[in-house]
Amino acid sequence: MKINRYVDISTIDREAKKDYIDRHSPFIHCEKTAKKGEKFAVTVKLGDEYPHPDDFDHYIEYVQLWNRETMLATAHFTPGALGNMAGHVEVVFNIVPTKNMKLTAMSYCTKHGLWQSDEVEVEVTE
Amino acid sequence: MKINRYVDISTIDREAKKDYIDRHSPFIHCEKTAKKGEKFAVTVKLGDEYPHPDDFDHYIEYVQLWNRETMLATAHFTPGALGNMAGHVEVVFNIVPTKNMKLTAMSYCTKHGLWQSDEVEVEVTE
Amino acid sequence: MKINRYVDISTIDREAKKDYIDRHSPFIHCEKTAKKGEKFAVTVKLGDEYPHPDDFDHYIEYVQLWNRETMLATAHFTPGALGNMAGHVEVVFNIVPTKNMKLTAMSYCTKHGLWQSDEVEVEVTE
Amino acid sequence: MKINRYVDISTIDREAKKDYIDRHSPFIHCEKTAKKGEKFAVTVKLGDEYPHPDDFDHYIEYVQLWNRETMLATAHFTPGALGNMAGHVEVVFNIVPTKNMKLTAMSYCTKHGLWQSDEVEVEVTE
Repeated sequence: MKINRYVDISTIDREAKKDYIDRHSPFIHCEKTAKKGEKFAVTVKLGDEYPHPDDFDHYIEYVQLWNRETMLATAHFTPGALGNMAGHVEVVFNIVPTKNMKLTAMSYCTKHGLWQSDEVEVEVTE
Repeated sequence: MKINRYVDISTIDREAKKDYIDRHSPFIHCEKTAKKGEKFAVTVKLGDEYPHPDDFDHYIEYVQLWNRETMLATAHFTPGALGNMAGHVEVVFNIVPTKNMKLTAMSYCTKHGLWQSDEVEVEVTE
Repeated sequence: MKINRYVDISTIDREAKKDYIDRHSPFIHCEKTAKKGEKFAVTVKLGDEYPHPDDFDHYIEYVQLWNRETMLATAHFTPGALGNMAGHVEVVFNIVPTKNMKLTAMSYCTKHGLWQSDEVEVEVTE
Repeated sequence: MKINRYVDISTIDREAKKDYIDRHSPFIHCEKTAKKGEKFAVTVKLGDEYPHPDDFDHYIEYVQLWNRETMLATAHFTPGALGNMAGHVEVVFNIVPTKNMKLTAMSYCTKHGLWQSDEVEVEVTE
């Protein structure tokens, strides 16, 4: 078992490969700075440009949010939660940071395995 | 094992019991109507007035979103994700409805078991 | 959302209803006594007489083991793990008890919701 | 976030490092051959020689069983399920194979991250 990593799709020529990489990759959307001890929203969204199927035999089963080697939260989905239509899985986790974070997201497609996002650094101030 | 259900805390006298019920109860926050086939945000938040601990031996481990008898999504948390401070677990699931829904949420506290929200009806229109 | 409970199927007349109840019900199989502080195997198996489908749109997604109001362990399955053939989901959790237990199991079918087993008491001795 | 991989501890000098690697590594125990369409037991056990703590702030939260890029099953544990004593997390998944498998296991320690086992090949015959 291996972990696929995001590759900047603007560096990729083949349309099918751009689609394959983009639709499986989790992207982290959040502010670059957070206040220590206050609620901080982190959105994890799959795919930036290309949607992923939500078929019974092919769907995104989980999305995890990690801070370095610590798993903060995981969201599991059942097929059909996106109406069995191609789309972008999207979940907003609210966490409360206490010090600087290096966030990554992981997602699991039931046909194409495990995918890891780029790392996002968040500065946490008093 | 039993499922605790939300009781309107304004009907309860004892402050400690109000706190106990409120801080464990998941509340669903969403629009009352949705468009068929479009992304629809459903927030599940624990506690309306009273925060819940985020201690290693006492935390909210999961929150589920159900439509009738179907589980749409589950979020799992590890202790410390809320900075080990009392607060309100909060997660936003984005789903794509295809017909009218009756949503409920469930949450699990590692010390005080399973709690079910009131049901929220969402009308889904073309 | 409701929790279905096991009903002794020998009290039920209709074959289809026997099948429906049995194949969805988790059964706990374990010794009646355990040694404090020693590993103790608890098998949770779905269905006693009737198998359940393992189809992409109809499968057993999770099985939980509870001791009173505490969830000890959960097993999640992806469709196809039973070869897409009707069968009995079966998982063995090894736990280490410290005092008498009242075990129940819960299972979730993606089409027919949540089911709870009968309670099993385990005496834990020094 | 990275995945730690098992290293044969007989090649390692420092006792503390042997312990660290061994107690976090999932090991797959199963037969080398299986019959197509029949139930096949796969045990995932953490640590071969060294036990892992089961403390509230330091425990094994999940164990996954993978066949190539497909996740077959996951078991989640709550701290205390092993009596808060050092031990070996152990779970038996029963799967039904349909063709040759390359199994790996993953486990997650709440303090020391994600660990992957060596791969185990299982020949599946008619």
